[in-house]
Amino acid sequence: MSIEHRHAREYVDRLLRTHGLDELTRRLEPKLENPSPKVPRGSRPTPEGLEHRWQLLNVRPESRKALADPQTVLHMEAYQHNIENLIGSVKLPVGLAGPLRVNGLFAQGDYYLPLATTEAALVASYDRGARLISEAGGCTAMLVSEGISRAPGFAFANLKEVGLFLLWALSHIEEFRLAAEATSRHGKLVNMRVTVEGNHVYLNFEFTTGDACGQNMVTIATDAICAYITAHTPVRPQYFFLEGNLSGDKKASVQSFLSVRGKKVTAEVTLPGFLVERHLHTTPEHMVDCWRMSAVGGVLSGTVGIQGHYANGLAALYIACGQDVACVAESAVGVTRLEVTPHGELYAAVTLPNLTVGTVGGGTGLPSQHVCLDILGLAGPGNAAALAEVCAGLCLSGELSIIGALCAGDFARAHRCLARGKASPKNSEEAACDQSLATLPA
Amino acid sequence: MSIEHRHAREYVDRLLRTHGLDELTRRLEPKLENPSPKVPRGSRPTPEGLEHRWQLLNVRPESRKALADPQTVLHMEAYQHNIENLIGSVKLPVGLAGPLRVNGLFAQGDYYLPLATTEAALVASYDRGARLISEAGGCTAMLVSEGISRAPGFAFANLKEVGLFLLWALSHIEEFRLAAEATSRHGKLVNMRVTVEGNHVYLNFEFTTGDACGQNMVTIATDAICAYITAHTPVRPQYFFLEGNLSGDKKASVQSFLSVRGKKVTAEVTLPGFLVERHLHTTPEHMVDCWRMSAVGGVLSGTVGIQGHYANGLAALYIACGQDVACVAESAVGVTRLEVTPHGELYAAVTLPNLTVGTVGGGTGLPSQHVCLDILGLAGPGNAAALAEVCAGLCLSGELSIIGALCAGDFARAHRCLARGKASPKNSEEAACDQSLATLPA
Amino acid sequence: MSIEHRHAREYVDRLLRTHGLDELTRRLEPKLENPSPKVPRGSRPTPEGLEHRWQLLNVRPESRKALADPQTVLHMEAYQHNIENLIGSVKLPVGLAGPLRVNGLFAQGDYYLPLATTEAALVASYDRGARLISEAGGCTAMLVSEGISRAPGFAFANLKEVGLFLLWALSHIEEFRLAAEATSRHGKLVNMRVTVEGNHVYLNFEFTTGDACGQNMVTIATDAICAYITAHTPVRPQYFFLEGNLSGDKKASVQSFLSVRGKKVTAEVTLPGFLVERHLHTTPEHMVDCWRMSAVGGVLSGTVGIQGHYANGLAALYIACGQDVACVAESAVGVTRLEVTPHGELYAAVTLPNLTVGTVGGGTGLPSQHVCLDILGLAGPGNAAALAEVCAGLCLSGELSIIGALCAGDFARAHRCLARGKASPKNSEEAACDQSLATLPA
Amino acid sequence: MSIEHRHAREYVDRLLRTHGLDELTRRLEPKLENPSPKVPRGSRPTPEGLEHRWQLLNVRPESRKALADPQTVLHMEAYQHNIENLIGSVKLPVGLAGPLRVNGLFAQGDYYLPLATTEAALVASYDRGARLISEAGGCTAMLVSEGISRAPGFAFANLKEVGLFLLWALSHIEEFRLAAEATSRHGKLVNMRVTVEGNHVYLNFEFTTGDACGQNMVTIATDAICAYITAHTPVRPQYFFLEGNLSGDKKASVQSFLSVRGKKVTAEVTLPGFLVERHLHTTPEHMVDCWRMSAVGGVLSGTVGIQGHYANGLAALYIACGQDVACVAESAVGVTRLEVTPHGELYAAVTLPNLTVGTVGGGTGLPSQHVCLDILGLAGPGNAAALAEVCAGLCLSGELSIIGALCAGDFARAHRCLARGKASPKNSEEAACDQSLATLPA
Repeated sequence: MSIEHRHAREYVDRLLRTHGLDELTRRLEPKLENPSPKVPRGSRPTPEGLEHRWQLLNVRPESRKALADPQTVLHMEAYQHNIENLIGSVKLPVGLAGPLRVNGLFAQGDYYLPLATTEAALVASYDRGARLISEAGGCTAMLVSEGISRAPGFAFANLKEVGLFLLWALSHIEEFRLAAEATSRHGKLVNMRVTVEGNHVYLNFEFTTGDACGQNMVTIATDAICAYITAHTPVRPQYFFLEGNLSGDKKASVQSFLSVRGKKVTAEVTLPGFLVERHLHTTPEHMVDCWRMSAVGGVLSGTVGIQGHYANGLAALYIACGQDVACVAESAVGVTRLEVTPHGELYAAVTLPNLTVGTVGGGTGLPSQHVCLDILGLAGPGNAAALAEVCAGLCLSGELSIIGALCAGDFARAHRCLARGKASPKNSEEAACDQSLATLPA
Repeated sequence: MSIEHRHAREYVDRLLRTHGLDELTRRLEPKLENPSPKVPRGSRPTPEGLEHRWQLLNVRPESRKALADPQTVLHMEAYQHNIENLIGSVKLPVGLAGPLRVNGLFAQGDYYLPLATTEAALVASYDRGARLISEAGGCTAMLVSEGISRAPGFAFANLKEVGLFLLWALSHIEEFRLAAEATSRHGKLVNMRVTVEGNHVYLNFEFTTGDACGQNMVTIATDAICAYITAHTPVRPQYFFLEGNLSGDKKASVQSFLSVRGKKVTAEVTLPGFLVERHLHTTPEHMVDCWRMSAVGGVLSGTVGIQGHYANGLAALYIACGQDVACVAESAVGVTRLEVTPHGELYAAVTLPNLTVGTVGGGTGLPSQHVCLDILGLAGPGNAAALAEVCAGLCLSGELSIIGALCAGDFARAHRCLARGKASPKNSEEAACDQSLATLPA
Repeated sequence: MSIEHRHAREYVDRLLRTHGLDELTRRLEPKLENPSPKVPRGSRPTPEGLEHRWQLLNVRPESRKALADPQTVLHMEAYQHNIENLIGSVKLPVGLAGPLRVNGLFAQGDYYLPLATTEAALVASYDRGARLISEAGGCTAMLVSEGISRAPGFAFANLKEVGLFLLWALSHIEEFRLAAEATSRHGKLVNMRVTVEGNHVYLNFEFTTGDACGQNMVTIATDAICAYITAHTPVRPQYFFLEGNLSGDKKASVQSFLSVRGKKVTAEVTLPGFLVERHLHTTPEHMVDCWRMSAVGGVLSGTVGIQGHYANGLAALYIACGQDVACVAESAVGVTRLEVTPHGELYAAVTLPNLTVGTVGGGTGLPSQHVCLDILGLAGPGNAAALAEVCAGLCLSGELSIIGALCAGDFARAHRCLARGKASPKNSEEAACDQSLATLPA
Repeated sequence: MSIEHRHAREYVDRLLRTHGLDELTRRLEPKLENPSPKVPRGSRPTPEGLEHRWQLLNVRPESRKALADPQTVLHMEAYQHNIENLIGSVKLPVGLAGPLRVNGLFAQGDYYLPLATTEAALVASYDRGARLISEAGGCTAMLVSEGISRAPGFAFANLKEVGLFLLWALSHIEEFRLAAEATSRHGKLVNMRVTVEGNHVYLNFEFTTGDACGQNMVTIATDAICAYITAHTPVRPQYFFLEGNLSGDKKASVQSFLSVRGKKVTAEVTLPGFLVERHLHTTPEHMVDCWRMSAVGGVLSGTVGIQGHYANGLAALYIACGQDVACVAESAVGVTRLEVTPHGELYAAVTLPNLTVGTVGGGTGLPSQHVCLDILGLAGPGNAAALAEVCAGLCLSGELSIIGALCAGDFARAHRCLARGKASPKNSEEAACDQSLATLPA
């Protein structure tokens, strides 16, 4: 939040000119009067609930229909375990990219990628990256590890009690496992890590969760472990919390690289120079120049990992496929690496340590989301590992396309064309855009 | 991607048992045969394009309708500048939370919050946080600074040429400004920062972009600056890229705290103990215990900033309101701070250095998204600053609710109830869930 | 390296005024003429070598004596395995602080701390912190874990070969252990971690190394493992390096918190309010205010961990006691936490995940360094764990003292007094300084 | 501090076997009895003070002489403003490396580098890097920016008061400057940055400090500003601290790259392949392979910047030259970059954003330290900028040497030879070591 004093001053002056000091200070004060009515609560979607909520809102009836359209209203029961206080649904356009050929330990074959976004050029960019990869025989992808964690934190009076607690906890892991696994058929406790910070102890419980992403599953399982602990520990903590913010849930963390959290996947492709030239209009050498400068740029700005825009592809696929979109914050980290091989080809790899994807549970069963998983051929049990490998291939597509666009000078043109075409008076411009889709980055 | 050798070994053994070594190695090899047909491209949505794309996909007709429903097909033109290769739309349920009273420099009044998510308990949790804040007179919110940047990178032969280039560039900022501002009515170049790393120079161009989030705007403006530079510089770079990955675009970075990137907002509320007790069933002191342990937990895991789950609220609001959802990766960082005041109240603040929100452009004009902005009363020009302040208030709601739930032991129960209710055999369970909405975290 | 354009411009203008553009560009050019004579090399210190090196240097004979004093010259053989190209020794003043009472798993009793520094106020500050702790019954300290690592990196042709290599490596850990342990009596291979990033594999080998810090030991042991690997692996890497920069050697890294690297120690003390008042002239509550603001300050600036000035105490003790001073870069990270207990006392803890200390090997046997370890009572085998616990107690002393000084407003005064006393015209100032030693921070 | 449960368990078992539970818990308890005598305090070194302190210590008279040698005792007054509670001096051996030719904006010519260390191979390694650079015409070095900061933090009742305070502060910078500059001839206030986090405000005051490193100077100057603020602000803070831990003092921080802190220097060299082969026994291409893997390794482990071992060279030079060695924690960050030029040469650059060096003040005037600065030709006023450029060249030497050693497989051999030679039975081994000095890394 560090701001140059000149900028701050200009901003303050602008504010004062617009509103005056008295008005500004008045605005910032708490105001206890005139409470607006509360949103009627309801975990089960009903027409009455919907009606009551819309009555609160000052919008025109036509507007209401954009959210509470007949189809949504008709099937509102479908959303019962995914939302509270339902008022309708928001529609995000879905574009198709691909095919993306993935040669994974789990994902095998050509995937058409459903991507939901409102950002022009995104689908076009991933599409050209995917085609390029496929033309080279596909990307190789490897799920390297998987798991998901919860990290309750316990506060003791002092280090002596910490020691006694650890002595006990380290010899009761089997009991913790039993307690945890009584809550779920799919969740398995596979490891426990211990962190001591003064009189605080964090226990990192690491689980596998089958084909579900599993955050709820591990929350409930860890709750059961905590219940066991509080019932049996010989040393009572002063207090404890089910999560001590050491699991990395919903945030980018270096820990992703170093510990269990989501699915860890790496994907690679080797591209002959002529394919780079044909699809991206540049050379392997120049792609590596761009990668090098971008890698250092990431380091200088203090990012977690070094990559270009994993978030674009992941957010679009997560939305389309009913994943937990907030997890993009933790999933969109990793390392992109490009180099020229001794034979003059382009070697490109992406490594994502923290993909939180599943093919059952969460939003995966909702009508339109389920269809998107179906388009991938990955709906339902048995597919989560493959979905993670496809995600890595998707990110690889995006990195190749954006670096290619930066190299060939297409980056700005693509956005100008696709996002601003609306204002263009001439058909020819649109045609040019359409035609130039082949060269478009996100 | 660091993995314990025991874990790695178990995983390898499991793989070998399932597939055998030959099969596994075969899977990983590039495969050049049998290309699947490519997705027919199109930047302009047409019924024919839709039809061609669906013909590729191996899904049942009923499935197709879940994406390509009549309403989406009827209004497909609306998506023209937001997507390519359209096949339909995905529907995310929207729940309503609030009201949230915000006493901001820009946001003033009570806001009903449309949140799009598929994660049970999320809306309920933000709802109770918002109500709590409102009952205390609202949160105070302050936009502290705003801007958005692009950072082209230039490679020179050596440091001597770097020096000569900088000498020139530092005296041509006015020309850069003119070039940039010729591309847009709303984008203003407000600053330039210089980074030297060996023979590489990054120029960080910082803009204001009116009520648009502005990423496209600054891309196009910076492209114009680069055109000016390459046409006029007395020292030619060996090569340059429009973005050197030093702008923080689409990723969490420490730079967010220290430089211009998005809207910087801080929001606070002071809650009397009785309100904490009534809404969250705990005390200010215990909330601070939880904050302290969580803050240290975040630090130990190497996160950017220290916070709980900004990503949950931001992703839900960004999706509902047509924001660039991939930007959640950069927006969901910041600092949450709780303390007990000398009078025994709970003081809570959130600080978000990188909100990339707008009320014009991007997806803000799409039918259902526009309605969500309308529900907030923030559609169209003049509202972006207020939207940013509402986002901060939203995050504050979520932090209070989740910390409260961790303190009161409600965290797991809420998820069990709302996400797993489906499996419950008894109505009574559901009733309990509904009734317990008042105590639910995300 | 990001610089505001105004600053950069002012700097450039200043340069041009002083030197002119031609002179400046000439300065930056490589210059091939007139090589100066090379330093005569020698790994074994001899009078002749010393003489030859001094003859190169353009310094007065008196100056020479400041480095090549009779005592150093007489015992130069002592430095044989600690330096090359010897020209003498630099003398750092050593001050004594304490006693510091440590109630550790290993350290037990009262320690006088020899601290080598040239920064005024440092010894005084640690001294008062140590006294305060001792008066409260000492700090409790707990070595939680120990180990040291090397991380060779292997590059393969592709992911398929990575997989085959891992398959082999994961089943040859016993062989790696044997190869490693043949090189050392004290080094034990205790774990291996695996990291895959595209076609690169890093193997993190974790060792215990007895009472030595052990960096050389693990380098040599890992070299032996690499020799075994290259001789026996069924899949040859394209190349490999003995260290892939994933061990955290000589640098601050988040990995310190999450993986084996050095000795992990935590130390705590609970201080009654009257002792805080007597020694630090402030209150537990205000100390916590300062900690809270400092913790957030650390987070906002993107530090690894959150602490005040561990580096001051560690550098001073490392220099005095013959430790590897460059390791201060990795050791001076951690977490300081202060809180007020329910009884109104101050609870303070420090947690250091990466102390690289030993009591044998390195510089620990050099004459003056050995005496400093002797002063601690920790010279020689059997003492490394205790030394690590003393280091944590030392850091705790420093954190209490500096936070106390910031709270009481003593911070600047102390530095003014002790560092600038020289310029003071009046004896009274000096007396005041001496008298005020009781209130001095670093 | 995260530890695998198996490791933790083994460690606990080992502890219990050695000591038993009762003994261990007893050890951890505070002990109020038997206080050891306190160290007699004294900011002015006197024979009596020395004597009193040694009487406390349980060491033999011969030991005492190793610290309190005649030369140190004779000149103890020299240490008056650099230490308290003096007991003698520790002697670190100094080796000479070079010459290092530096073509800087400030440093010009060939520098012999005095390096104080107790780690074998360090001097030899920097020496060969320096020679290599010099043979190629020297490195080009460029001081890009300089400054040093203090960041007091102010706590207000709420955001409204924060706003009013900022309104005032932003229009009183000139007054702050006058207050600051009244305390020092050399310190100049050049900028102020503002950070708002809830009801906390940090003001980052950035100074230039002539040829002093300047930490004390800016502490005292900022103290004067704070005095002005507290005397004149229309809105009183609830409390404030002279440093809010946002200046990056004594710790690695990403902020170093993005804000004013110390001297920012970049240095580069271009090496023909034959020189790389002659000195390092490898090729430019392989050096780049090693760099790439090391850069990614650094990123994966969560370091600040990406580099190899800046800390080694900086600690050795800082100790020798009377710099603040604790600052190695903040100085030893940066970016190393290697690439192969289109002509097949090796391009190498280092970038250090945070060198805290000075040629006056601190320990620079102490007898042996002053001589080391003299050896560099950089003692006294007018030389700090040149010293910073030499530091960058030194780090560049070290990076080239260590990467070369990793490439040629010399890394372990060098350490085995130089650090373990003592145990070698044969002269021939020693001769081999001496002879192999040409190929030695740190």
